[in-house]
Amino acid sequence: MTKLCRYRLNGHEKSGLVDSSGTLRDLSSLWDDLTPDCLAPHSLGKLADIDVSSLPAVSGSPRFGIPISHVSKCVCIGLNYTDHAKEAGLPIPQEPIVFLKAPSALCGAYDAIPIPPHASKMDWEVELGVVIGSTARHVKEADALKHVAGYCVINDVSERSFQMQSSQWDKGKGCDNFGPVGPFLVTADEIADPQNLHLWLDVNGVRRQDGSTSTMIFSVREIIAYLSRYMTLLPGDIIATGTPPGVGMGHNPPLWLQEGDEIRLGIDGLGEQKQTLIRWRHDLPTK
Amino acid sequence: MTKLCRYRLNGHEKSGLVDSSGTLRDLSSLWDDLTPDCLAPHSLGKLADIDVSSLPAVSGSPRFGIPISHVSKCVCIGLNYTDHAKEAGLPIPQEPIVFLKAPSALCGAYDAIPIPPHASKMDWEVELGVVIGSTARHVKEADALKHVAGYCVINDVSERSFQMQSSQWDKGKGCDNFGPVGPFLVTADEIADPQNLHLWLDVNGVRRQDGSTSTMIFSVREIIAYLSRYMTLLPGDIIATGTPPGVGMGHNPPLWLQEGDEIRLGIDGLGEQKQTLIRWRHDLPTK
Repeated sequence: MTKLCRYRLNGHEKSGLVDSSGTLRDLSSLWDDLTPDCLAPHSLGKLADIDVSSLPAVSGSPRFGIPISHVSKCVCIGLNYTDHAKEAGLPIPQEPIVFLKAPSALCGAYDAIPIPPHASKMDWEVELGVVIGSTARHVKEADALKHVAGYCVINDVSERSFQMQSSQWDKGKGCDNFGPVGPFLVTADEIADPQNLHLWLDVNGVRRQDGSTSTMIFSVREIIAYLSRYMTLLPGDIIATGTPPGVGMGHNPPLWLQEGDEIRLGIDGLGEQKQTLIRWRHDLPTK
Repeated sequence: MTKLCRYRLNGHEKSGLVDSSGTLRDLSSLWDDLTPDCLAPHSLGKLADIDVSSLPAVSGSPRFGIPISHVSKCVCIGLNYTDHAKEAGLPIPQEPIVFLKAPSALCGAYDAIPIPPHASKMDWEVELGVVIGSTARHVKEADALKHVAGYCVINDVSERSFQMQSSQWDKGKGCDNFGPVGPFLVTADEIADPQNLHLWLDVNGVRRQDGSTSTMIFSVREIIAYLSRYMTLLPGDIIATGTPPGVGMGHNPPLWLQEGDEIRLGIDGLGEQKQTLIRWRHDLPTK
């Protein structure tokens, strides 16, 4: 299993790999940083020639960054699980609902999530992230998965009052650190079936989301083919494929995240994330 | 007046400058490419030391690219002119309506616009583009314009049937080449008042939009301050500030762009764009 990541050393992100025993190893002998160019099939193929045990182990506990640098766009699919659409009180979409998450919202899997001033309805959404490896324009469903470099966990954090303030959701989905990605990118060859993955999310130790990608309305291959008819998907682009039931908004009364709350989430084979909600400060570290 | 641009030479974009006589000159002695880093105030300040007449004139008619490389996000404001909201039949927004344009939709000012398959309601929107020069987080309105590197023309091309297919507009705003930018970025010091600029757009020689930034609902400084409370604005980010009346959707019956139509648009002091609508082909050149 190849788990690619970016970790911070002396203020810069370096490319890394997490081996089968969970050890973080430095991959800068192959790639200085993990850029979209690294994700091309001929480039990822170089991983097969590497003796993982020969890569230097990284000491300490460095911060994990977004697994790919220079993400050009993060495309999100709304209401893509039947049961989540029901809990949101919205009809089952006949076509994928497409919106964008600002790349500036993306962050590492363990980064804290600042609560923006005037936020009152902070919510969580565990999602399967799909990372594009080669340019996809008007691709057929049968060919769509060939364009996938790998998969990752994404928390599509939302502030529902910002999201619903106008008709357009992007503002409430695009605040800083509203998109933890990773901790790593698992190459596509290691995921036998992206439509058979267990996803879960806990808030303060209580299981809130517990689903399977098998209940997606639009499958990963359908989403890629669909999006590629509207916009060219580029290497390094991330698609957040929607969330299963159990978001805070779906409870009665709703459950909103508060300062100090801890979110843990994960997907089978793709690792786990952990974030703490913190009070917003002007001097929060940049990513 | 400093008009910065990127032009293509041997398949690569290089930084350029259009002088007061309209001559394109090579600026690669200062910057190899015009990246977000170049837009920082201390960096732009270097332009003052340059003897423009000493820069080599560029021969031929190279393609003008997006004036800034690596645009991280393009944030758009919907319905930001009172009369445009009226023609769209929508109420005057109480707060800015925020959505995002996929960076892959951005293109050069003279690039052709392919009509996506199944498109039926192609429309135009001349807009004042604001290019961020320094990171803006929770900035006050009084300080907002300090974060502007410059201004440019943007055509916020839309496919209304895609835009209105779900509640979310991004799909119909994010198709390839739906965001011509430029031809150049005019540095902010050259624009005395961004709220007093004439904008216009012609389709096949007929004036369709004819407005002024003086009738914006939310001013540039208000928009920057507002957005910066939700998401960090980064150097190179572009804000499309909304369009004045006269879009195709606003006519009765509506006017939609067709193959072969020619759009010309411009803003006082920021230059002119020209695009032709073409049939979509699988082998369209990449940007």
